[in-house]
Amino acid sequence: MSTQTDTVAPSTPDWPAPGTPDIEIARSVQPQPILPLAQQRLGLSADSLVPFGHYKAKLDLTHMGNLSAQPYGKLVLVTAITPTPAGEGKTTTSVGLNDGLNQLGVRSSVCLREPSLGPCFGMKGGAAGGGRAQVIPMEDINLHFNGDFHAITAAHNLLASLIDNHLHWGNEADIDPRRVTWRRVLDLNDRSLRNTLTGLGGAAHGIPRETGFDITVASELMAILCLAENQSDLHRRLGDIIIGQRRDHSPVRVRDLGAEGAMTVLLKDALNPNLVQSLEHNPVFIHGGPFGNIAHGCNSVTATRAALCLNDVVVTEAGFGADLGAEKFIDIKCRQSGLRPDAAVLVCTVRALKLQGGARKKDLANPDVAALRAGAVNLERHIDNLRQFGLNPVVCVNRFPTDSDEELSTLTALCRDLGTDAVLASHWADGGPGATELAQAVMDRLEQGTPDIQLLYENSQPLAEKIHTIATRLYRAGSVSFTREAQKQIEEYEALGFGHLPVCIAKTQYSFSADPTLLGAPEGHDLPVKRLTLSAGAGFVVAVCGDIMTMPGLPKRPAALDMTLDEHGLIVGLS
Amino acid sequence: MSTQTDTVAPSTPDWPAPGTPDIEIARSVQPQPILPLAQQRLGLSADSLVPFGHYKAKLDLTHMGNLSAQPYGKLVLVTAITPTPAGEGKTTTSVGLNDGLNQLGVRSSVCLREPSLGPCFGMKGGAAGGGRAQVIPMEDINLHFNGDFHAITAAHNLLASLIDNHLHWGNEADIDPRRVTWRRVLDLNDRSLRNTLTGLGGAAHGIPRETGFDITVASELMAILCLAENQSDLHRRLGDIIIGQRRDHSPVRVRDLGAEGAMTVLLKDALNPNLVQSLEHNPVFIHGGPFGNIAHGCNSVTATRAALCLNDVVVTEAGFGADLGAEKFIDIKCRQSGLRPDAAVLVCTVRALKLQGGARKKDLANPDVAALRAGAVNLERHIDNLRQFGLNPVVCVNRFPTDSDEELSTLTALCRDLGTDAVLASHWADGGPGATELAQAVMDRLEQGTPDIQLLYENSQPLAEKIHTIATRLYRAGSVSFTREAQKQIEEYEALGFGHLPVCIAKTQYSFSADPTLLGAPEGHDLPVKRLTLSAGAGFVVAVCGDIMTMPGLPKRPAALDMTLDEHGLIVGLS
Repeated sequence: MSTQTDTVAPSTPDWPAPGTPDIEIARSVQPQPILPLAQQRLGLSADSLVPFGHYKAKLDLTHMGNLSAQPYGKLVLVTAITPTPAGEGKTTTSVGLNDGLNQLGVRSSVCLREPSLGPCFGMKGGAAGGGRAQVIPMEDINLHFNGDFHAITAAHNLLASLIDNHLHWGNEADIDPRRVTWRRVLDLNDRSLRNTLTGLGGAAHGIPRETGFDITVASELMAILCLAENQSDLHRRLGDIIIGQRRDHSPVRVRDLGAEGAMTVLLKDALNPNLVQSLEHNPVFIHGGPFGNIAHGCNSVTATRAALCLNDVVVTEAGFGADLGAEKFIDIKCRQSGLRPDAAVLVCTVRALKLQGGARKKDLANPDVAALRAGAVNLERHIDNLRQFGLNPVVCVNRFPTDSDEELSTLTALCRDLGTDAVLASHWADGGPGATELAQAVMDRLEQGTPDIQLLYENSQPLAEKIHTIATRLYRAGSVSFTREAQKQIEEYEALGFGHLPVCIAKTQYSFSADPTLLGAPEGHDLPVKRLTLSAGAGFVVAVCGDIMTMPGLPKRPAALDMTLDEHGLIVGLS
Repeated sequence: MSTQTDTVAPSTPDWPAPGTPDIEIARSVQPQPILPLAQQRLGLSADSLVPFGHYKAKLDLTHMGNLSAQPYGKLVLVTAITPTPAGEGKTTTSVGLNDGLNQLGVRSSVCLREPSLGPCFGMKGGAAGGGRAQVIPMEDINLHFNGDFHAITAAHNLLASLIDNHLHWGNEADIDPRRVTWRRVLDLNDRSLRNTLTGLGGAAHGIPRETGFDITVASELMAILCLAENQSDLHRRLGDIIIGQRRDHSPVRVRDLGAEGAMTVLLKDALNPNLVQSLEHNPVFIHGGPFGNIAHGCNSVTATRAALCLNDVVVTEAGFGADLGAEKFIDIKCRQSGLRPDAAVLVCTVRALKLQGGARKKDLANPDVAALRAGAVNLERHIDNLRQFGLNPVVCVNRFPTDSDEELSTLTALCRDLGTDAVLASHWADGGPGATELAQAVMDRLEQGTPDIQLLYENSQPLAEKIHTIATRLYRAGSVSFTREAQKQIEEYEALGFGHLPVCIAKTQYSFSADPTLLGAPEGHDLPVKRLTLSAGAGFVVAVCGDIMTMPGLPKRPAALDMTLDEHGLIVGLS
């Protein structure tokens, strides 16, 4: 890799040979031992680091003092336009931007979410950036990665077992077995576990109940782990979880069963952030990965805080497009933690904008300035939305080999008309040197001063009003409709004292609306709220708008069938 | 800890204060950093060690050469009399013996099984030895311990998901959904998952099927991991697993579905043995923990081989009493691997022998030489059985504070009459210095030359004959009866070419017979074989004799409810 410290993105990126798998690029770089890297680059002491192999570590938070009482670096949020099958490259850009910042000599780290194990075996591929903007060791990150998700699976299912055990041994707490909402989880794609009957086989084998399994990232424990400030906050939040209702409809908390202590024990190590490195040996925090629909879709508060204590700039990402990811980052993660972003980067690609503008997927390699112009309304809407939060984003055009010069210059001009910088970046092809211009634009934005971040609504507003505010101001819905069930739930949650919680909208990521086929920048549509769920431990109310899948299935030919170890013990078929 | 190198067990052990929890003793010793310990004590190079935190590591087998082509130390099997609720202390004695050997200056390690997570949350307590003969860090060993069991859970359930996915997408292999024998697993006690219906909810959610969950240690993958010689043997064994039948009753192998590669990928790191230390900083290998009933109940072949390459003496244990554990150690683990024990230690306690002799549990603290004499028939039977394998065991009397001098001298005299050494050992109270006499007796036995180990039966014998041989020669059954189902299965397995496999008897560990209430040394009883199951990947046929539970339940007040983290982040309530 180049060691130049001040450069602009080359006009002709050094594209990897077409079809080169990410894993091959990842393996071409020998990672540096993580402990000396962390000590040299982050100034961490040896006893604040717990090694997991030679190239992964956890930060032992109990050796790091009070993270919220230390001076912080600047926080940069990477978000994106509405996602399409063409991909916008949010994680790749986060990694590339961080490498670019380090190229400029900025002391910077990036905070990412952990990939889920299940999908690796379904559709092809892992998730740790791409091209020359990747995180290594990518095989480990995509597989068991320091055991965090396994710990969540164990703690989640321990609670489920304790609930069924309570029912079996006399049900002292008078739980209504028909109203237990706590399901089980596995970090797998397994459609057959979505709906199950358990407790069959007679009196010795528990109480028959209808229940099911979700994928581990959909567990409320995942959201809790990512929002908890420390061990005692984790313990409190676990106790706050509501697992169902009594026969009188009063909520049953984990605390009522006494399970939060054992769950905290199981999650003790998982609460510590993981540290790895980019292909350019810059520090990368990867910690937590809650769903972006039924949860808030951001990496952990502990990782973000630790990174902010140890760096001048911290890059982080939020799930899906800015309508979901950035909104939840600010209205849930920032609201709860007090963290505030100092700048935002909005990632787009020429290909994705053309899809938003009506081009067909098979035509994306052909220049089509008209489709690009038509699709730019999506970009414009996201810019406008981010400005409502007080963030004027730097637009990053994540370059693809098929982008034509005319398309790129059209897009740059469009952004100029919208009053923002658009920066071409080729980190996928060139790594950090391909993102130095982007990094410089971000540094310029940070030097313009601290933005005045506005949360979208007040805690004190009623739940329906919060949903209405998000729907009309960000999604540009003309109306919000609630089913009878949803209305009843709102009343119930407010009566129980949960009206002050923020709302987490679970809708499709493919449109500003709840209809995934409405591309571009739809307005005047209706946001249909089907039902609500309460994540009392995580501290938000989920408004479910559409069909949200919490346990994926495998495709007809799962990627698992092409995976194996070669004769050197290296993984084949992961990506 | 004392550093004297030549001593005898003190006549008055230094008992820890009554009621001192193991975890408190474990925490009173600061573990040594594992990497330098492994390098100094085992001569391992830095690149053959993978750290997991500061006090745990994995041996990277790919850096250790061909383990079966290197010179080996001597292998000492620790087994026990028939277990009772009073406890015989097999793991504790294995750890203590190893500490004792190291006290004598012998280059020795011990190989143990990994404890299961599930039971920690049920009845009180973990499992890593006890008193001053423990393995540390005991909290980590009892919780997620380097992720091996989580990896097995993931690989096992991935296969289950691939099977249901195959059924869902058209069932090309023509699997009979009613004859899928592959269940799912969780490392939890959860009776409600024993019998389930999955695939409910309609056509988008799979094929409805009756199935269930076992605890992870009951997974065939656990047995495979413990018998596999290396990655390619693991891969082959995974492909050999039979998951059910086609409509024409022909077996469906994992290889037919193409799932073995992805499963090998998930188990890649789990195949590497784990290294920790005793309270006296002697090396301890802990790896794998298959059930002792439906599987062979020994730690992994890879760990045993690695330890034998690195030591002059290796101590290892086998599950349950010698009728099950030692028999399976020899007839399954040794038969498959070619390993052979050079000596055996048979552990007993005065308390347990009194229970075998008819004393009541509440009376065990009172001297009762008559009950001891009556119970000694159990010890005698086990000694005689071990001699059938060619092993004249050293009898270890694992001392308890309540043992009277008369009881101890009676027991010593009884053993003398039986032609074997009985050594009093107080490692529970005194650690290694309490087991130097035992260690010396073992060294003396090893110097008497290499025993001629006899397997109990030939591979070529028919399955029914193998079962009959074990039943009559070891259990002293008068007869073996097979249900019609079992008879049919034997015919079926032999027709399919599995008649050459060893048999793994799944019966109660509480009696030589299949009736747990028959204590002492029963003879002439019938061994009822209810059904067989085929572990084609592990390479044995299981003969189920009695009710074998593969998914435990939680008690009315589970230990989980008393567990938590204290203000220093230390675990409370684990043991």
